[in-house]
Amino acid sequence: MAIEGKDEQAREPRIRLGMVGGGTGAFIGAVHRMAARLDDQFDLVAGALSSTPEKAMQSGRDLGLDPGRTYGSYKEMAIREARLKNGIEAVSIVTPNHVHYEAAKEFLRRGIHVICDKPLTSNLADAKKLKKVADESDALFILTHNYTGYPMVRQAREMVQNGDLGALRVVQVEYPQDWLTEAVEQTGAKQAVWRTDPAQSGAGGSTGDIGTHAYNLACFVTGLTLESLAADLDSFVEGRRLDDNAHVMLRFQGGAKGMLWCSQVAPGNENGLRLRVYGEKGGLEWSQENPNYLWFTPFGEQKRLITRNGAGAGSAAGRVSRIPSGHPEGYLEAFATIYTEAARAINAAKKGAKLDKDVVYPTVDDGVKGVAFVEACVASSKKNGAWVKV
Amino acid sequence: MAIEGKDEQAREPRIRLGMVGGGTGAFIGAVHRMAARLDDQFDLVAGALSSTPEKAMQSGRDLGLDPGRTYGSYKEMAIREARLKNGIEAVSIVTPNHVHYEAAKEFLRRGIHVICDKPLTSNLADAKKLKKVADESDALFILTHNYTGYPMVRQAREMVQNGDLGALRVVQVEYPQDWLTEAVEQTGAKQAVWRTDPAQSGAGGSTGDIGTHAYNLACFVTGLTLESLAADLDSFVEGRRLDDNAHVMLRFQGGAKGMLWCSQVAPGNENGLRLRVYGEKGGLEWSQENPNYLWFTPFGEQKRLITRNGAGAGSAAGRVSRIPSGHPEGYLEAFATIYTEAARAINAAKKGAKLDKDVVYPTVDDGVKGVAFVEACVASSKKNGAWVKV
Amino acid sequence: MAIEGKDEQAREPRIRLGMVGGGTGAFIGAVHRMAARLDDQFDLVAGALSSTPEKAMQSGRDLGLDPGRTYGSYKEMAIREARLKNGIEAVSIVTPNHVHYEAAKEFLRRGIHVICDKPLTSNLADAKKLKKVADESDALFILTHNYTGYPMVRQAREMVQNGDLGALRVVQVEYPQDWLTEAVEQTGAKQAVWRTDPAQSGAGGSTGDIGTHAYNLACFVTGLTLESLAADLDSFVEGRRLDDNAHVMLRFQGGAKGMLWCSQVAPGNENGLRLRVYGEKGGLEWSQENPNYLWFTPFGEQKRLITRNGAGAGSAAGRVSRIPSGHPEGYLEAFATIYTEAARAINAAKKGAKLDKDVVYPTVDDGVKGVAFVEACVASSKKNGAWVKV
Amino acid sequence: MAIEGKDEQAREPRIRLGMVGGGTGAFIGAVHRMAARLDDQFDLVAGALSSTPEKAMQSGRDLGLDPGRTYGSYKEMAIREARLKNGIEAVSIVTPNHVHYEAAKEFLRRGIHVICDKPLTSNLADAKKLKKVADESDALFILTHNYTGYPMVRQAREMVQNGDLGALRVVQVEYPQDWLTEAVEQTGAKQAVWRTDPAQSGAGGSTGDIGTHAYNLACFVTGLTLESLAADLDSFVEGRRLDDNAHVMLRFQGGAKGMLWCSQVAPGNENGLRLRVYGEKGGLEWSQENPNYLWFTPFGEQKRLITRNGAGAGSAAGRVSRIPSGHPEGYLEAFATIYTEAARAINAAKKGAKLDKDVVYPTVDDGVKGVAFVEACVASSKKNGAWVKV
Repeated sequence: MAIEGKDEQAREPRIRLGMVGGGTGAFIGAVHRMAARLDDQFDLVAGALSSTPEKAMQSGRDLGLDPGRTYGSYKEMAIREARLKNGIEAVSIVTPNHVHYEAAKEFLRRGIHVICDKPLTSNLADAKKLKKVADESDALFILTHNYTGYPMVRQAREMVQNGDLGALRVVQVEYPQDWLTEAVEQTGAKQAVWRTDPAQSGAGGSTGDIGTHAYNLACFVTGLTLESLAADLDSFVEGRRLDDNAHVMLRFQGGAKGMLWCSQVAPGNENGLRLRVYGEKGGLEWSQENPNYLWFTPFGEQKRLITRNGAGAGSAAGRVSRIPSGHPEGYLEAFATIYTEAARAINAAKKGAKLDKDVVYPTVDDGVKGVAFVEACVASSKKNGAWVKV
Repeated sequence: MAIEGKDEQAREPRIRLGMVGGGTGAFIGAVHRMAARLDDQFDLVAGALSSTPEKAMQSGRDLGLDPGRTYGSYKEMAIREARLKNGIEAVSIVTPNHVHYEAAKEFLRRGIHVICDKPLTSNLADAKKLKKVADESDALFILTHNYTGYPMVRQAREMVQNGDLGALRVVQVEYPQDWLTEAVEQTGAKQAVWRTDPAQSGAGGSTGDIGTHAYNLACFVTGLTLESLAADLDSFVEGRRLDDNAHVMLRFQGGAKGMLWCSQVAPGNENGLRLRVYGEKGGLEWSQENPNYLWFTPFGEQKRLITRNGAGAGSAAGRVSRIPSGHPEGYLEAFATIYTEAARAINAAKKGAKLDKDVVYPTVDDGVKGVAFVEACVASSKKNGAWVKV
Repeated sequence: MAIEGKDEQAREPRIRLGMVGGGTGAFIGAVHRMAARLDDQFDLVAGALSSTPEKAMQSGRDLGLDPGRTYGSYKEMAIREARLKNGIEAVSIVTPNHVHYEAAKEFLRRGIHVICDKPLTSNLADAKKLKKVADESDALFILTHNYTGYPMVRQAREMVQNGDLGALRVVQVEYPQDWLTEAVEQTGAKQAVWRTDPAQSGAGGSTGDIGTHAYNLACFVTGLTLESLAADLDSFVEGRRLDDNAHVMLRFQGGAKGMLWCSQVAPGNENGLRLRVYGEKGGLEWSQENPNYLWFTPFGEQKRLITRNGAGAGSAAGRVSRIPSGHPEGYLEAFATIYTEAARAINAAKKGAKLDKDVVYPTVDDGVKGVAFVEACVASSKKNGAWVKV
Repeated sequence: MAIEGKDEQAREPRIRLGMVGGGTGAFIGAVHRMAARLDDQFDLVAGALSSTPEKAMQSGRDLGLDPGRTYGSYKEMAIREARLKNGIEAVSIVTPNHVHYEAAKEFLRRGIHVICDKPLTSNLADAKKLKKVADESDALFILTHNYTGYPMVRQAREMVQNGDLGALRVVQVEYPQDWLTEAVEQTGAKQAVWRTDPAQSGAGGSTGDIGTHAYNLACFVTGLTLESLAADLDSFVEGRRLDDNAHVMLRFQGGAKGMLWCSQVAPGNENGLRLRVYGEKGGLEWSQENPNYLWFTPFGEQKRLITRNGAGAGSAAGRVSRIPSGHPEGYLEAFATIYTEAARAINAAKKGAKLDKDVVYPTVDDGVKGVAFVEACVASSKKNGAWVKV
């Protein structure tokens, strides 16, 4: 309830970070960079941002990277950075799936930690090779199954571990989207093209792109190990070469059963990752599109809503929460928007440039209005609620 | 629908930023810093982080600031930084309300842009003086009414401006919380103490702390100007010196009417800022605790859900959105958590330290499992859904 | 949780009921009749269903009433029925407001119980006269503030009485609708015409029609007595003679405060009656449009969902519940639809008439399909999930 | 939007109805009776309400049946009623599943229409025999798959038929409950005992009890025909003889795919029947626990909320709706509660008995308060919102 602050992490020097892929315009590259900045633990200092050298250089410039550390290939970056005195300590790999193994290998072999987008690789053979390389390296390998970072996912996992649900029986996980309902890959939409191309994505379409997230989330929260599965995959859109809808029945070790549905052709679903777990003693429900909330029902009791940093939320969620309860994660982005609008205004002012008309931020006038409002409230209340001009 | 990326802002050099207040442990200071980092437009390079000099120095160390630019008072910071060649260009003021005016004045007079927490000041006299100083300065003054930064708030505002609601009639805005339901200020809770102290907060309690946000949001979205109000304020908790609940009736210029409720004694409400606007042609509803959604009903038609970057969302929301629809803002924090867990692991590895047992991140094993899952799905589906071991 | 049955009320002979108003096509008359039938406690045996004698007779025929007991005026009905050996014991009055007093008087004076639609009368003078008549009569007077009949409203009231919320502080009640957003009374819409006519409705428009419900509900649940109010009423639609939007601040005896908003010009609101009550120890929230649920937050604990007949629901709700938890009230209507479709089919069969093509009901074929489905499930599961033809 | 009334059905004489099973205390029997009464199309005039003759007689008395038409067995009832001049025209069969076939046969053969609870029978052999009898009879056979009676289910079906979703691709249907999470059948809970007994229920547990509803609903709305299925059934509770959880993958004729989950061991789910249907052009979502709403997303457009009798709702829903939009079905029950409380008060008054203290209904005093409230609002508003005593 209280909105007491949370101590920031004890300060360590920032980790020097490179990036492979993620050039200008790439959605996931920008996400990785914002994620790396938020808690101020990394400095992005080098990049091989595109497999097209010119685009790589331009992207480096856009990001304000030192041109001397903007590389035309990941291999070049790995070799050079490994030799620098203050070379990168870690690298983010945000390329299409089929590049992950080769790229990661170059860095892991040189002792550079790897933060890699999922799925790991486009086929199991590569995945196993990558595992071997990672196991032999002193460097760490971190896979960005980002949904495991939500505080309430951590909370759910902790509750399962604590036995709040008793022995698990049923796991329902689903991940519907709708953006591939039509054959957008045939009109050249970049995000669709590589995701529906077996050469770049591997054997799985929706299964690889989002099914792996759903599967990972289910395992992360439940701690269960999948034993076997039965699947029915479809490519509903004519001409599509990879699955765009998958129905999977799951059998876990120890007897729990599950279902997994992933789809990219379900109109009305933007990014509907959702997990429900049921055990002998209770049930849990979580939905990614409203991630600050976790529903918990101890069998025979009332359903209750656990909120991030709210009553009954445990330490696993608390240690990865940045803001008080009731402030949805997203609050930070809204706050950042004010800062970024301010930056735009300041930059325009610096250059004497005209400020873009769309830039909006609250000013001292809003502040005066706010204080006047408070004083008018107090004055009206003192006059028994009489109308007071503001 | 599509998850195409959004180009990052064209790169400008980062703006050199100082901070007044916001020492270690202060909630709002940490929020300002994260907000400043997210879009990479600012470098925090100086601070007067506490009115207690020792705490100020320690906080500077915690944040990795240059000790030479960690100041014991904002005045000292303003004087010194204004003389430095690469002194701060902007300052964030995140102190209690009663300090805002004096602090802002020092910076504005020296041409340093001010980003200031709300409410503007603790009384109207100070507010007007501050306005005068701001008006006379070449520097900008930005007030962090952060809720105006939400994309769907921008969307709502744009729709009102576009006339989608017709002439406005009724505005309902509310901001209930529950954290002051009991007399926590009497047990020393820091956030409660200054908020309930007239000397630090001014004449308004809940009205100043959250009522101003509600009022600002209503004006921001509707574009209306308040003409008069009638208020009924209470301090329900015994011994509390400022209002903890306020009921206000509003009359806007042009004839629209409204109600505003703010409360800090409403159990079950964490941070329930909510706005509803009704006009001759339609109605809008938005709730801060689920901020990615905006409800719109054109009169006589079905209620529809507008999502950030979803169908029908306009450019005002789009230009301040960072991620695709369906990824709640909060997605970035979850993603950042993975990065920060990685940083912890990397730092522990660097020092040969034992990794804290609570640190969790996906590894190459999770990646292998994911790829194996995809291939098992494909194999099962090819065998007509037969069970396949994973 | 369990779906054990609920014993029906011990059987009393049905009460003989008459009706004033509520002729064919009147919304509220049909509602009263369905309500009277549901629990089988009444027999509708007489009516003065319209002030237009012909319409009264036709309506009686439509309802299957004995023509000898279909009257042209309520007065005639009162006089005649009071003399009959098996005359009506109770009467439902469902006319416009301004008729209530005169009609009720005729029955109360003759010892006939009155069930009367709200608001009581169209002005306070009539209300007081009616109260006097009712107080002097041996007959009962029941006002159909129907929202007090919801099980979760009873539950809320019981919880307040039990002290689960502690001393009450804040009451928020609202009742927005949108159906009068445009000047429909000027196009002759019957329901709109009398509701916006001072002669028929009295001094209040939205306040009388729905504000009284909101006020009644707030008092019913909280047990509080209103001490004073401050109101701001509007008629937003040009030419409307009664209020269509009202903002009211409330002061209750004992110090609790409240706000009441009622509106018939708020697009997107169908029938949004909603009550929130906050006390020293907890808060409650209930919404009429989703009436099977009550939110309860004991201060400092998790918000929990109390469902009709679910865990923790008390006897006040239980005694007026007809079906198990999870079956929304509405389940009965859906069930009744099957019966009514069956009646249509049976009636058509009886007459050898062609069944209307829109009539739909499940048949033996659906039943065979269902059993085949079960057996196929069992067979597939026994064959380790092999695909089985149905 | 408007709350105009709906004409009641043109009056036909009520259909004379008998009932088999459904003695005092049986949940589903009472539901059938309320459903039969709601629209006033049936008169319950005979019953064989229990297989225990004494209980049958007592139940008849409780229901106010003529003792001469209260039978000790359904066979006796069928024989006798068929011979009566005004014998029953239809019969409701609400016994456990294994009795359905034999009972239905007796009535169908005698030309008496049968309304039968689901599932049809406890095994496919009986189902086929029953189908044969029904096909050979002139009497109708109606199966109470009651969920098909919800207006928004009719709406969904109509939209699929109209092609609003385009060719269907994916059907997700689920029906989780939690009331069998523990071995309640071993403690004698009546509803649990027969549902988990193969002799009474047949081969399916949750599949028969609720899976058939889910399957029926999916077929009803989509119009699809199931081609084959693959199922994984479990009995999670030790000692349970029938499935309590089922995962089923579905393949429909024409290429659509689906998943069906039913469970009675999923804590936190009361009666969670939910259907989602996706086609080439759009998607639909409906949930039984909030049945007045249907979500519809035309691909590439905003999600919209279709409400019963609201904008865009079609005639299929409209013809089975009883009340205006915004009044959840459930409104009628709340209304009926007022009537039934009135009946209790009237009956107590008749007998000079003391009224049970729990009986609550609004009185003339509430009415006076309501009118006084309206007049106070008007008075305050006329005095510019001054506080007015009530």
